Amino acid sequence: MSEVSLEDIASLAKRRGFIYQGSEVYGGLSGTWDYGPLGVALKRNIMQLWWKMFVDDLDDMYGVDAAILMNQKVWKASGHVDTFTDPLVECSNCHNRFRADKIDTSKCPTCGKTDTFGKPHQFNLMFNTHVGASWGSFEAPDGKHLAGDIKSIDNKTRQAEVMVPIKEGDTFDSVTVYEKNARTYLRPETAQGIFTNYKNILDSFYPDLPFGIAQQGKAFRNEISPRDFVFRSREFEQMEIEYFIDPAKWEEAFEMWRQRVHEWFKALGLPEDKLHELEVEQDDLAHYSKRTIDFEFDYPHGKDEILGLAYRTDFDLTNIQAASAKSMEYRPKDGSKAFVPHVIEPSFGVERALMAVLVSAYTVDEINGEKRNVLKLPKHLAPIKCAVSPLLKNKPELVVKAKEVYTMLKKEYGAVMWDDNGNIGKRYRRQDEIGTPFCVTIDFQTLEDNTVTIRDRDTAKQTRLGVEALKNVLDR
Amino acid sequence: MSEVSLEDIASLAKRRGFIYQGSEVYGGLSGTWDYGPLGVALKRNIMQLWWKMFVDDLDDMYGVDAAILMNQKVWKASGHVDTFTDPLVECSNCHNRFRADKIDTSKCPTCGKTDTFGKPHQFNLMFNTHVGASWGSFEAPDGKHLAGDIKSIDNKTRQAEVMVPIKEGDTFDSVTVYEKNARTYLRPETAQGIFTNYKNILDSFYPDLPFGIAQQGKAFRNEISPRDFVFRSREFEQMEIEYFIDPAKWEEAFEMWRQRVHEWFKALGLPEDKLHELEVEQDDLAHYSKRTIDFEFDYPHGKDEILGLAYRTDFDLTNIQAASAKSMEYRPKDGSKAFVPHVIEPSFGVERALMAVLVSAYTVDEINGEKRNVLKLPKHLAPIKCAVSPLLKNKPELVVKAKEVYTMLKKEYGAVMWDDNGNIGKRYRRQDEIGTPFCVTIDFQTLEDNTVTIRDRDTAKQTRLGVEALKNVLDR
Repeated sequence: MSEVSLEDIASLAKRRGFIYQGSEVYGGLSGTWDYGPLGVALKRNIMQLWWKMFVDDLDDMYGVDAAILMNQKVWKASGHVDTFTDPLVECSNCHNRFRADKIDTSKCPTCGKTDTFGKPHQFNLMFNTHVGASWGSFEAPDGKHLAGDIKSIDNKTRQAEVMVPIKEGDTFDSVTVYEKNARTYLRPETAQGIFTNYKNILDSFYPDLPFGIAQQGKAFRNEISPRDFVFRSREFEQMEIEYFIDPAKWEEAFEMWRQRVHEWFKALGLPEDKLHELEVEQDDLAHYSKRTIDFEFDYPHGKDEILGLAYRTDFDLTNIQAASAKSMEYRPKDGSKAFVPHVIEPSFGVERALMAVLVSAYTVDEINGEKRNVLKLPKHLAPIKCAVSPLLKNKPELVVKAKEVYTMLKKEYGAVMWDDNGNIGKRYRRQDEIGTPFCVTIDFQTLEDNTVTIRDRDTAKQTRLGVEALKNVLDR
Repeated sequence: MSEVSLEDIASLAKRRGFIYQGSEVYGGLSGTWDYGPLGVALKRNIMQLWWKMFVDDLDDMYGVDAAILMNQKVWKASGHVDTFTDPLVECSNCHNRFRADKIDTSKCPTCGKTDTFGKPHQFNLMFNTHVGASWGSFEAPDGKHLAGDIKSIDNKTRQAEVMVPIKEGDTFDSVTVYEKNARTYLRPETAQGIFTNYKNILDSFYPDLPFGIAQQGKAFRNEISPRDFVFRSREFEQMEIEYFIDPAKWEEAFEMWRQRVHEWFKALGLPEDKLHELEVEQDDLAHYSKRTIDFEFDYPHGKDEILGLAYRTDFDLTNIQAASAKSMEYRPKDGSKAFVPHVIEPSFGVERALMAVLVSAYTVDEINGEKRNVLKLPKHLAPIKCAVSPLLKNKPELVVKAKEVYTMLKKEYGAVMWDDNGNIGKRYRRQDEIGTPFCVTIDFQTLEDNTVTIRDRDTAKQTRLGVEALKNVLDR
C-alpha cells in the first residue's frame, strides 16, 4: 500500500466533491467541514451499515435520537460543566492562544518570544448557548473577549455595574446577561442523550438485561486547536452505544463488544495491520472506569484513536439518580433484587471511521504502464455503485441505448452515475479516483446483441456480458 | 376517520416509545423532544424515503451535508441577523413574556393585569454561540437576564465598566465578553448550507442547469413559545432543496415541484382532503419571492403549514456574491452569457411530516364488537414491519420454531419484533397500536406442516400460509 498524506486525502476530497471546508465561501469557520455529494453518500453508507449491524440486526438493541439541546442539569450531573476542560494559555506578546499540554510553554510558537505565558486557564470545551426569550443583547465597539465582575447592582435605576478586565487594544463584541436557567450547551457527546432516556426505554419496552441503547448524531466541542482534516473538528458525528448489564457479567460483555468492534473494522475494509488496541493503564483510567481500550489506527498524521470501548460501571446512572432524585434501578423479571445496571460503552466517531476508510482505500498503482489514483473502497461503501457511459458521446444510437441501461440500473441501485465526459479512458480514471467499483460501457456491439462491457475498478479488466446479467455482477 | 387530539398522539407517542419530552428526567427543556426506538424508526423511514425520492432517484440532484455551525457572515448576508425576529413583550407585573403578535396585549394572559405591556422588542430567534478559545466566563449571583452598555474602558487597569439595566429581583448568570468574530449562531435553516456550497458543486461536478442541491439536517430556532407537540419546537429536522434554474423557466420548474410535493404527500399516505394549498398573496410575499405556496395540513391544533414551496429568485446567491466578493454566475456549456441562476425552494419539515403521518394513521375502530386503537401507517413507513409470536409462551417446541422464523425474517427485514408477552389477543392489540402491518403466529399446526398464520393489521384477518411464502406477503 502506498503511503498517503493528509494533503492527498484532503485535496482529493475537495476536488472531487467529498469534503469541503465549512463556510468556505466566506473564508471558512475553523474546525467545521461540509460534505459534498460523494462525501454524504460515503458517510450515509457508513452510518447505515452501523445502524444495521448494531441496531437492526441485534435482538437486544433500542435506537434513540435525543435532542442536541439538553437541560443544563444533564451536564452538571455528568461532570462536564466542572471538568470537561483543556488548559489554555495566552501569549502576553502576540495574544495567540494554545493548549498548554500541547506546546513547550517556555517560548511562544507564533511570535517566538520567551516567558510570555502565564498560568493555564481551564477552558471548558462545551459551546454555550441560551434557551428561551432573553431581552436581547447589546452590541459594543469592535474587539476582544474577557470576562468581568459585577461591582454593584442598583435595583432602583435597574443598572448593574460590571467590571470587565481587558487588555490594551481590546474591544468588545457584546454583553448579554441571561436568566440563570437559560444557559445550556451544545452536547459534547451523544452518550448523555442515551443515559437520560434509559428510564423511558425501561418504561416503554420492559427489556430484559442485558440490553443496549444506540444513538447516532452530532456532537460539538470547542477545540482550542482543531486539526488533522476531519479528525479533530469542532462539530462531528458520533455513534454510541450504552450496553446495560449485570455488573457480575461485565467481563464477558466487554469481550463481546471487543469482538464486535473488530467485526466493524472488517466491514469497513480496514487492514488489520493498521489497527491497534491500546489497553488504557490502570493509573490513566477515568476514576469511574474499570477497563478501557482505545482502538487506534495508523492515520497519516500518526497513530491515533479511531474508537473507544469503556466499562463505565454505574457512574452515569447513579449521577442521574442523585441529580434527578429518580430511581435508575432495574427490576429483574424473576423478582430478584433491583439494582442500577452497569454499562459497557463502545463509542464510534463517524469522521474518524470515514477518514480511515479513505486512507485505507487510497491507492496509487500502475495499469498498462500508466500511473493511476484509485480509491479501493469496499463495494458496499462506495458512493457510486456503477457508472454508465456510451462509448461515443456523439452517436445518438449509443446514447439512447446507454440512457436505457442507466435508467434501469438507477432505478435498481439509486447511486448510479451517468458519465459521458471526455474519452472512455478519462472516464475510467475519473471513476477510479472516486472509488466506483464498476463502469458499464455501451458500444456498437451492444446495438447488435444487447451485451455491454463492465470494467472492474481494482483489476481494470473489462468483461463483456448481457445487459440482463449486469445485476448478477453488481449484486456480488 | 376518527378525530384525534394532540393529547391522543402525544400520549401514545410517550407510552409506546415514539417520542418523549427532551431531558424529561430533569424536568424537561421546553421545545425539545427525544425520539424513542419506534419514533427513530419512523423518522428514519420518512427521511430515507425523501432522500430516495428527491436525491437518489433523480438525475439532476446533488446531496450535501453542511455543518450546523457556520461563519457569522452567512447569517449577516442572508438577512437573519437583522430580520429573523419575533416581537417580544414582557408583562411588567408578572414578568412573563409573549409574542406580541400572538396575544391581545391589552391584558396579560398569565396574571390578568391590564396595560402591563410596553413596546415590543424585536427578539432574534437564532441561538447564539461562540467559536474558539475565549478566556472563559464569569459566574454572577443568581438571576435574570438583560443587556447593558459599556460606560467606560480603562486600558491601564484593564477594566471596563458595563452598565446593565435590570429589574427589581433580577439576578445574574454570567457575563462573558467574546472576541467579535467568535460569535456565531446555530443555523435556523439548512438552506444557507446549500447556497454556500453552490459554488463547490459547480467546481466539482460541472452540472447542467437546471440542477438541485438537497440537504437533510437539524435546524434551531429559539421560539418564544414552543407549542403543539413537535409541531413548533426549538430544535427540528429539515429537508430542503434549492433547485437552480434559468429565470426564464421558473414557472415550469415551480409547477414540477408543486407536482412532486403532491407525490410526496401521497408517499406519506396523507389523505388529500386534509391537505390544502395556500397561495401566498402578492402583498404578503417576502420582497425577494415572486411566488410562494404554503402547503397546509389539518392538524389537531388546526390547519397549519406542513411545507413550503417558494420561488426565491436570485436573492440568496446575489447576497452571497456581494458579501463574499466571489462570482456566483453559472457559465452555460454552450458558451452563452453567464448569469446568476434563480432558485425554486421546496422546504420540508420532518417533524411536521411525521406528525401528519401519525394523525392520519391514528384510528379507533371496532373488531368483533371490541374497540381498538390502530395506527394505519403506510407499510413502508411502519417502524416494525412484522411481529413474530409463539402461540403459547410456555411450550418450548413452539418457542424454538417461532425463534427460527423470527431469525429468518429479522435477517431479511431488520425491523422485526419478537413478541411473547401476554396472550395472543393482547399482542395483536399492542402491535395494532404501534402500526405493525403483520403479526406472524407459530402454533401447533406449524410443527406439523410448516405453515403459520399471518394477521393483517387493517382487516384483522388471519391467513394461513407456508413459512416460505411469508416473504411474498411481506414484500407486497
